[in-house]
Amino acid sequence: MGPFKRRGRSPSFDAVAGNGLINRRALLGQGIAIAGVGAAATVTAAAAEPLKDNPWSLEMGGPTPAAQTPSRFEKAVTRTRTNPDNEFRNSHARTPHHLLNGTVTPNSLHFSINHAGIPDIDPAEHKLVIHGMVRQPLEFTLEKLTRYPLVTRMSFLECAGNSAPMFSNEPMQITAQAIHGLVSNSEWTGVRLSTLLDEAGIDPKAKWLVAEGADAHFLDRSVPVKKAYDDALIAIYQNGEHLMPGNGYPMRLLLPGYQGNMNVKFLRRIKAVDQPAMSMFESKTYSQILPGGKTWRFNFVMQVKSFITNPSFGHALKEPGFYTISGVAYSGTGRIAKVMVSADGGKSWGEAALQGPTHPQAFTRFVMPWRWDGQPAVLQSRAWDEVGNSQPLRAQFVAARGETKQPLTNPVMFPNQHYNSLTSWAVDSKGEIKHVYA
Amino acid sequence: MGPFKRRGRSPSFDAVAGNGLINRRALLGQGIAIAGVGAAATVTAAAAEPLKDNPWSLEMGGPTPAAQTPSRFEKAVTRTRTNPDNEFRNSHARTPHHLLNGTVTPNSLHFSINHAGIPDIDPAEHKLVIHGMVRQPLEFTLEKLTRYPLVTRMSFLECAGNSAPMFSNEPMQITAQAIHGLVSNSEWTGVRLSTLLDEAGIDPKAKWLVAEGADAHFLDRSVPVKKAYDDALIAIYQNGEHLMPGNGYPMRLLLPGYQGNMNVKFLRRIKAVDQPAMSMFESKTYSQILPGGKTWRFNFVMQVKSFITNPSFGHALKEPGFYTISGVAYSGTGRIAKVMVSADGGKSWGEAALQGPTHPQAFTRFVMPWRWDGQPAVLQSRAWDEVGNSQPLRAQFVAARGETKQPLTNPVMFPNQHYNSLTSWAVDSKGEIKHVYA
Repeated sequence: MGPFKRRGRSPSFDAVAGNGLINRRALLGQGIAIAGVGAAATVTAAAAEPLKDNPWSLEMGGPTPAAQTPSRFEKAVTRTRTNPDNEFRNSHARTPHHLLNGTVTPNSLHFSINHAGIPDIDPAEHKLVIHGMVRQPLEFTLEKLTRYPLVTRMSFLECAGNSAPMFSNEPMQITAQAIHGLVSNSEWTGVRLSTLLDEAGIDPKAKWLVAEGADAHFLDRSVPVKKAYDDALIAIYQNGEHLMPGNGYPMRLLLPGYQGNMNVKFLRRIKAVDQPAMSMFESKTYSQILPGGKTWRFNFVMQVKSFITNPSFGHALKEPGFYTISGVAYSGTGRIAKVMVSADGGKSWGEAALQGPTHPQAFTRFVMPWRWDGQPAVLQSRAWDEVGNSQPLRAQFVAARGETKQPLTNPVMFPNQHYNSLTSWAVDSKGEIKHVYA
Repeated sequence: MGPFKRRGRSPSFDAVAGNGLINRRALLGQGIAIAGVGAAATVTAAAAEPLKDNPWSLEMGGPTPAAQTPSRFEKAVTRTRTNPDNEFRNSHARTPHHLLNGTVTPNSLHFSINHAGIPDIDPAEHKLVIHGMVRQPLEFTLEKLTRYPLVTRMSFLECAGNSAPMFSNEPMQITAQAIHGLVSNSEWTGVRLSTLLDEAGIDPKAKWLVAEGADAHFLDRSVPVKKAYDDALIAIYQNGEHLMPGNGYPMRLLLPGYQGNMNVKFLRRIKAVDQPAMSMFESKTYSQILPGGKTWRFNFVMQVKSFITNPSFGHALKEPGFYTISGVAYSGTGRIAKVMVSADGGKSWGEAALQGPTHPQAFTRFVMPWRWDGQPAVLQSRAWDEVGNSQPLRAQFVAARGETKQPLTNPVMFPNQHYNSLTSWAVDSKGEIKHVYA
């Protein structure tokens, strides 16, 4: 064969920060080849043909199921649950971020928290009522609601208590799923709440909407009318299909960027009122405890945040060489504008590549090329959003919001909500990964 | 209560085309209220409170599963299969578009076609080899491949034979699933094929890549090297999780916009060569029959297309009033730029609203407000993409590409591929919907 011509551009592949971070421009054109990825095994041409045939290549494969499910080799990729036997208390199921990629959370793996089990709702019998301070109370069946104009958008949903283990004064040795698994990201399709409020004729004096679910808890939260007119949806579809039962089937409130609990599931009514209901979840559960014993009520917006999913606790690097650091970033206040990555515990930073297009109040996947030299490294990410908010450093965050000493005696009495500081993964010289504070 | 203030903008809600199509600007601000949607039932304030409690509100709900599945009330939302008993032939499973919304196809419902069943591949044993006209043959395990920079993007996949029923000279009375169910849309994450070819050092004289799967068919297709450098991926993740077994687990070729069969699943090798392999699927199966008996080989790109999913065959309109017409549009040659909708069989057209951001070679959901007056109507959509391609009208398409007389004697001998003309749904005065040619 003749000479080999280099194709494409030849961008810089210089180190952009300490401990082996490579300029993200190496991701363009032929940069990665020049950067010497070299992760593949080289083989001789003779060895490449004929290929060894594995058993599955030698016989007819299995049947096509009506609904596809993952390979039996992916059993570890599942939600972890706090109440699998459905005891008479709440139940959490966490998304396995350390085993996922991209930005969409499959419906099977979307996190869920239910306070009274998952109701088995017949959609033909379920109704949504809008009443209170309106000109004309209205009642909507699912069939009627589906006739309204439907809006489709990406949005993350995050429990206010997601990442609660990060309040511990000692870093807990648990996976990104265990730490950050109460956030997920989907494409939602539903009716604008403003369309329905306009039809009902909401009184301008109504400042709040009390949303109530049809679960046995009749879970209710107060939502500012302004949010309803900004971007609230009555969501009916999640990633193209009807909502999962644990995520609010047949309809839920979707308040992009607001804490998960306010996105009331199994939505059965919205009452327009002039002051908030002071329901249990807003006056107690999600009334956030601050240092000094004060509480912070009506703190709705989930602030800008990011965490590295690959590599992370539970993974191991087999050998020095090229790796891709990647993770998710999101913000309740807009699109992600920038994610910086450090491999030396925050001493130096390089800008990660973002997988666009970026959506407001939705996951953005960031990617950073890295050559690991086999020496200890501490990986961190830090995100900025389009309105200029950024993740606070840990020391700043702890000073403002507190931390808890292990072991916890009464976790309810300690700050455990709206964590949005950094997550740090330490790689040791054997390639093992620990959770650290750095 | 005091007077009610109108909120938001008051755009035009004039009819924009015949038979009740409403200007899409009515979707903004308070337009829909002004347009008199009026689909909801009005209730008295007294009736709105207290609400009737359904049985699921009166007792603790069910357990939280590790992996979520749809409600038992959604059993109809599933794939239809041509070979459920896994007989020794190929097997199709179709996406239920008439029961979905948004743009993402859930992994459980992504279409699949397999010619030799679904192989049960152990990812730890599977390897991808790149060889042929390269400087250095390379071998990749899944673990190694995952260390490369991963790219995330939306993309549709469409079988070249999707919509084959539309070649019938009589409109078949079947659902959008049965007609168009061999196209789906996902977020895919994988490694750029160009990155791997650069590392192997592809010979500039190599113009084709022969991609081969590890299924018992060793399904192989020839792909232009140029496509590999444009946007081809080795896809590893589908909507965030590893590929479904029927969609190519653990890795497949993704050629955005190219006919589905070329996106070789269970990918085990790519051989760089100087001419195409003339494999069975390119020389026979997807060698398209044209009027006059000629065949069209290497017709790779799936052209711009759209179809209405709601309402469509299998649905019924219960009563005159407001409805939302919606469907999906996509193009192998870029982003969707415009979708026009007609309610009078193509005599007049109104522009639909697109749910952005639009992605190249991916589904875009279009939405059109409509007030049905109870008279017969014929609903159609027609899409344009950003490079100016549009769906041909049916008469143009049939003249160029042929049609088949029913009943078919030997379907293989008739034109049945790359249909991208219009789909028409006729609504009669009872609200029943038929498939028609118009």
